[in-house]
Amino acid sequence: MATEVEVIFQPEGKRVRIKSGTTILEGAKLVGADLTSICGGSGKCGKCKVIIEKEGENAGSITEMEKVLLSPVEISAGYRLACCVSVQGNLTVRIPEESRTGRQRLQVEGIETPVKLEPLINKYFVKLPTPTLQDPRSDVDRLLDELQVRYGLENPKVSYNLLQRLPLILRDSEWEITVVVWDNDTIIGVESGDTTHRIFGYAVDVGTTKLAGYLLDLNTGRVMAVESLMNPQIPYGEDVITRITYAEKGFKEQKELQQALVEGINQILKRLLDKTDVNPEEVYEMTAVGNTAMHHLLLDICPKYVALSPYPPAIRRGLNINAENIGMKINPNGNIYVLPVIAGFVGADTVAVILATEIYKRDELCMALDIGTNTEVFLGNKDEILACSCASGPALEGAHIKQGMRAATGAIEKVGIDPDTFEVKYWTIDNAKPCGICGSAMVDILAEMLKAGVIEVTGTMNKDVASPRLRAAEGGLEFVLAWGKETSTGEDIVFTQKDIREIQLAKAAMHTGTMALMRKKGIVEKDIDIVFIAGAFGSYIDPENARIIGMYPETTLEKVRIVGNAAGTGARMALASKTARKTAEEISDKVTYVELAAEPNFQAEFFNSNVLPYADLARYPQTSELLEKLGKYPKKPPKYFH
Amino acid sequence: MATEVEVIFQPEGKRVRIKSGTTILEGAKLVGADLTSICGGSGKCGKCKVIIEKEGENAGSITEMEKVLLSPVEISAGYRLACCVSVQGNLTVRIPEESRTGRQRLQVEGIETPVKLEPLINKYFVKLPTPTLQDPRSDVDRLLDELQVRYGLENPKVSYNLLQRLPLILRDSEWEITVVVWDNDTIIGVESGDTTHRIFGYAVDVGTTKLAGYLLDLNTGRVMAVESLMNPQIPYGEDVITRITYAEKGFKEQKELQQALVEGINQILKRLLDKTDVNPEEVYEMTAVGNTAMHHLLLDICPKYVALSPYPPAIRRGLNINAENIGMKINPNGNIYVLPVIAGFVGADTVAVILATEIYKRDELCMALDIGTNTEVFLGNKDEILACSCASGPALEGAHIKQGMRAATGAIEKVGIDPDTFEVKYWTIDNAKPCGICGSAMVDILAEMLKAGVIEVTGTMNKDVASPRLRAAEGGLEFVLAWGKETSTGEDIVFTQKDIREIQLAKAAMHTGTMALMRKKGIVEKDIDIVFIAGAFGSYIDPENARIIGMYPETTLEKVRIVGNAAGTGARMALASKTARKTAEEISDKVTYVELAAEPNFQAEFFNSNVLPYADLARYPQTSELLEKLGKYPKKPPKYFH
Repeated sequence: MATEVEVIFQPEGKRVRIKSGTTILEGAKLVGADLTSICGGSGKCGKCKVIIEKEGENAGSITEMEKVLLSPVEISAGYRLACCVSVQGNLTVRIPEESRTGRQRLQVEGIETPVKLEPLINKYFVKLPTPTLQDPRSDVDRLLDELQVRYGLENPKVSYNLLQRLPLILRDSEWEITVVVWDNDTIIGVESGDTTHRIFGYAVDVGTTKLAGYLLDLNTGRVMAVESLMNPQIPYGEDVITRITYAEKGFKEQKELQQALVEGINQILKRLLDKTDVNPEEVYEMTAVGNTAMHHLLLDICPKYVALSPYPPAIRRGLNINAENIGMKINPNGNIYVLPVIAGFVGADTVAVILATEIYKRDELCMALDIGTNTEVFLGNKDEILACSCASGPALEGAHIKQGMRAATGAIEKVGIDPDTFEVKYWTIDNAKPCGICGSAMVDILAEMLKAGVIEVTGTMNKDVASPRLRAAEGGLEFVLAWGKETSTGEDIVFTQKDIREIQLAKAAMHTGTMALMRKKGIVEKDIDIVFIAGAFGSYIDPENARIIGMYPETTLEKVRIVGNAAGTGARMALASKTARKTAEEISDKVTYVELAAEPNFQAEFFNSNVLPYADLARYPQTSELLEKLGKYPKKPPKYFH
Repeated sequence: MATEVEVIFQPEGKRVRIKSGTTILEGAKLVGADLTSICGGSGKCGKCKVIIEKEGENAGSITEMEKVLLSPVEISAGYRLACCVSVQGNLTVRIPEESRTGRQRLQVEGIETPVKLEPLINKYFVKLPTPTLQDPRSDVDRLLDELQVRYGLENPKVSYNLLQRLPLILRDSEWEITVVVWDNDTIIGVESGDTTHRIFGYAVDVGTTKLAGYLLDLNTGRVMAVESLMNPQIPYGEDVITRITYAEKGFKEQKELQQALVEGINQILKRLLDKTDVNPEEVYEMTAVGNTAMHHLLLDICPKYVALSPYPPAIRRGLNINAENIGMKINPNGNIYVLPVIAGFVGADTVAVILATEIYKRDELCMALDIGTNTEVFLGNKDEILACSCASGPALEGAHIKQGMRAATGAIEKVGIDPDTFEVKYWTIDNAKPCGICGSAMVDILAEMLKAGVIEVTGTMNKDVASPRLRAAEGGLEFVLAWGKETSTGEDIVFTQKDIREIQLAKAAMHTGTMALMRKKGIVEKDIDIVFIAGAFGSYIDPENARIIGMYPETTLEKVRIVGNAAGTGARMALASKTARKTAEEISDKVTYVELAAEPNFQAEFFNSNVLPYADLARYPQTSELLEKLGKYPKKPPKYFH
């Protein structure tokens, strides 16, 4: 029989009781300790480092896995991997700074796209005649007759939960009530007195990494408050595939992931309500967007096949479900509209971005990139929209990068390299001492290294660079961005050859998508009228540096529009407008999904896209000219695959 | 602090642990012991007699209430009233035969009214193409596209619960599935392979006293099995008012009544399924009828105002609700259609009876009586239908009658009295030794006593009758139906003057209803073309004797049709046919409810109706002639109130 043991997580002091034999990581998940895990506990990422503080004998001996993933220095300092330690007795561990997800800078603002206010929630104030022997109509008939006469509302249904209490509500309110009607079809609430001036809604963007929530006044369309939170599913794995794998273990695990998400969304709502005078019962509708995996996990729909070729989602079209059904803490009779998805890897967030950027009705030819762990690329206008999904991976969010981290306090977010002296200038989030590098800086690093000649267009470091910053290390060359004396940990912050390869892979994935869509559509760079860059990450990158490394097709910078969290904008539009929902459904119908893996020249294009900015330099004339001017133009042209 | 004590109920030996201070009756409810209680434990009916067998000191001393309601003989024999005893320690009690509801004869058969088979549940078999990279449609799109192409089904919704498991079901079934669609609007089930030949439904008549259930094959319309059960709410009170009063105590109590009902309905379903090869998951729809109180209690809708003038129901129109919502053990996505009601005291059972008797489309002028604890009377044809409710009370079901009992084994169910010798011939249920009198016999007793001159048309016993059977007793005269030597208890079975008054009250209530409707409609007895007598009780009465005592307007017997449990028939029709449901809604709209208490001459009519058959004997010419022929015609005409 397994006995129960206690694990204490420092510095927060969180405690959890678990069965002996359980891993520290599982304990951390249970108690919500802030411990990162990218691979979901499969012993691959080496990110869930903890330091054993007390009763280390109960942690068992170090595993082969840990010997590979931890450095000898770390091992001697008492570091272990939380996923590798099966707890045998009480234990106290410390979660070091590098293993924390930390306070994140979460982009929640997006463009504002005007939309005609026509929410699905409507309120109608009525005074009803009291029942008499001459007029003993049923409560519902009494109500519906009045709604018909006064507002022309024809036979709406009455939500069953409401019906159960209706006789009491009507009499407690002395027959003067405000009726809450959804889509002029179903009465979902009856409130005492005249509350027609209070109609609220909640829009949520469910990102793999981040949740963003918006409380809207649906009488005015005004955003009353904005809040965000890390996705509480992160302890189950940083990417969607790891989470889907977890969900596949069984219905219990699938439900567990849903509950984590629902709790997070409820937590955001609570914060929004705390900022305002709105009660949860007054929020009668919610809209949600997210990629297809988040969509399925939020709805507790089996997500398995979303991750298996040919990646069919369970459902594409938009869904209305009852709030209580999934434990959402708005009004129990409230409705949740989940926007439609497009395909297994092109989700409701993409539909929302298309809605927000209005590509679906533009004459101009638009390309859009919604950059995240998966980057969706789409190309088109009112006539046609093509979309694909690129496995850009979590490198830009800090994973697989030696000193990568998310966009939290102390992260280096912007970098400049002097092409002559190779001296580095960097900016950190909250101006704190640097402790790692976040995605926007990585784009800068590659672009600046390229301009300074620290790397070739192939991404290979130039060992001839005469600077102490470029040095040999175990595993290859590395470049020092910040010296130990400047950093919060006291260690040098470096960017390695391997790190460059990771960013190149991410960039190549996106670029392959853009090329595939352009080829499919038979257009070239100059045909593009607008490039939209969406997503939290996208908001902080330097568009010029991104163009230099070839993250998107080379256009003039005036054509580039950074639209921030446009998915959130789309969710808000769908909340405020019935027409926007109809448009979202039409977008989902209209967009043509392009499966990159099925494209004939996918592999070649991927290799070509690894080059900075691209193997065919003629397609990046401005970048080529700049490099030439700086004297960094490659002597030997890069190899181009056909 | 209250300690826990144990009460054992003999002869079943059921045990229950309750807090000391709880009454025996509450304990009996908890453990489901077969103990009658008409007043719901308010110490008024004196029916919940138990005999203390062991540890009587824990029953406390006898209360004033019990001294009134129990005879000295009973008190000396250890009788107590279960509602008056607060248990102070362990106790063993015996439930005597007279306190048991016993095995009941429950009428469940009703007329068969042909209906075009058009159930709301339809099944469609489809083979779907498997997903490929060239065809990565979502599972739902794949399914709906095929349903559209093969069966012309346009965009049905998919039940959310089903959607959650859909990806697994489709693949486990290797894409060959039968889709279960409700109302061609919502997909509520997906079954592996071709199961189109198996479509089942469940119809339930929820009576105050009795539940009747029918399992239907919806491919053929055939009734596969029939079962019935006493309403498990009976321990909470025998009539609807007592139960509503119990429900008013709080939401918990209201829910408790619902749960009791739902468990009963589930129990019937289990028996039906056990008789056949049908699985509960294969039952996708259920219909239910019941009076308005049962309707509200089944749906856990606040029933308070149904019992308060002007008695408005919460909802009149028919309702579709999800089976899982109220814990009904058919398929969790199954639909429950609850037929519409008409008013607070004219329920869905009446709508069902009108549906089954087809009064709503007849040219003939019809009167119908659905006899029960409440008797609904309705009058009309295709042009108009008037309906009212009469508080006939539970006397005909045995309550308030000294030796009354339900229609269970040993109940005298039919009686004849020789007008010359006053000798009695009786028949009992199951030919057992008599132990009480059930309703059908009470009608006979009154009619036979009237014909034999044992009573006057006023109901007063004629003390000059020369028979040892008519004797004086405490409280007035009584008539011996069976001598002690013939009965199972060894005691004489008698019918008292007070019993006669009770039946007269019931009869007068019904008759007042019939008169009020006739007057409202401006017709007289001879205008009536058909008299329908419905209800379990109605199936066993002698129509002639019922006419003699004036239970219904005097017509020729050929015009009288006994239709049995026509409410059950209506429930089955609504299960088998969408048109029947539409008709039911139209009936609910069309029927004009007449509130008897609001009728100007209600009181006078009630007094007139107390006379057997009626104060205006000229309106009962056949009965008058018969009595005259037998020499029992009243010398002094009864008083007629205007």
